[in-house]
Amino acid sequence: MAHSGRRPGESRTRERIATSAQEAFGELGFDGATIRLIAARAGVDPALVHHYFGTKQRLFLSVMNLPFDVAAVKAQLLGPGLPGVGGRLIRYFLSVWDEQPSVRPILTGIVRSATTDPDAASLLRDFLGRQGLFQLVGAIAPDRPELRAVLVGSQLIGLAMGRYIVGIEPLASANPEDLVAAIGPPIERYLTGDLGSG
Amino acid sequence: MAHSGRRPGESRTRERIATSAQEAFGELGFDGATIRLIAARAGVDPALVHHYFGTKQRLFLSVMNLPFDVAAVKAQLLGPGLPGVGGRLIRYFLSVWDEQPSVRPILTGIVRSATTDPDAASLLRDFLGRQGLFQLVGAIAPDRPELRAVLVGSQLIGLAMGRYIVGIEPLASANPEDLVAAIGPPIERYLTGDLGSG
Repeated sequence: MAHSGRRPGESRTRERIATSAQEAFGELGFDGATIRLIAARAGVDPALVHHYFGTKQRLFLSVMNLPFDVAAVKAQLLGPGLPGVGGRLIRYFLSVWDEQPSVRPILTGIVRSATTDPDAASLLRDFLGRQGLFQLVGAIAPDRPELRAVLVGSQLIGLAMGRYIVGIEPLASANPEDLVAAIGPPIERYLTGDLGSG
Repeated sequence: MAHSGRRPGESRTRERIATSAQEAFGELGFDGATIRLIAARAGVDPALVHHYFGTKQRLFLSVMNLPFDVAAVKAQLLGPGLPGVGGRLIRYFLSVWDEQPSVRPILTGIVRSATTDPDAASLLRDFLGRQGLFQLVGAIAPDRPELRAVLVGSQLIGLAMGRYIVGIEPLASANPEDLVAAIGPPIERYLTGDLGSG
């Protein structure tokens, strides 16, 4: 796309729209962030947003990209061996939210939007499924990897909702290592333990 | 309020607006459900919605009431003793979503809306905090009951998101008893176990 013959001014405008869209989706969710608002924040006409990105759905999917290298994360979590993998996953998850300012509004936007928009829901399903968590779980658990992935995913979504999106105390201000100690073992049970039936 | 001198026609109109608001908040979340849409579905003028309920925030808080008897639920979960309380809590939680058709859109509406609206977020915090889960946890755990309550709450919200709101497979179609077996023990650990630090 960078070589499609766009002039530099066009690239900058496109980038400004993308940034304003990321911020608006992050703050307001898919429904709340209107094309009109995104355009106003970027200082352009709404028609230009449609010109560069098409529909609101396509704009959302274009800008909500997460810079995760799944293979690298997998190596980091599984490198030290299986024991402790639950705690390492929680520590990694918290570090993404706590320490990567540019990623947080994107993740927030995806979770917010997934509650009402089918495209965002599909993105979240991918992230928890074949594109993301499933690759980690598939490398660990030979039995019922899909169920294990969604069990882990459900705890991670709930943690994100409580700590970052809705802000429920004392979850919101808890020390990360306290959460690693409390939530790590349940996550490890979902990943490697006996699921109790099946 | 039933004795405030309203004529029967007024009560019926008010009720029709409340029902249409519950359904709209449930389907579309707080932001998506506009007063105009709620009025149209109830077959009344938007001004009448404001007349009966005031602002959209007040309408939301008026109609999103959950018919839970906390004392009765507590007795049901703790009656058989402490062991197995995690599984019983999950079974109860799933039965509310699966078997009470009128409650499901309300819960969905609260979770959806809580991701963007401060009033709905406050309602969800109450439900997981002093008004709800906290009363159960307070009766079980003398140490760190607030943290235990939000840990349980985070898993329950994530389960609701994955199974009912976003619809992630195989969580969405899993047999309830498989989920009781898989998620009950982690919940029980949050309620009664060693949280690993502190």
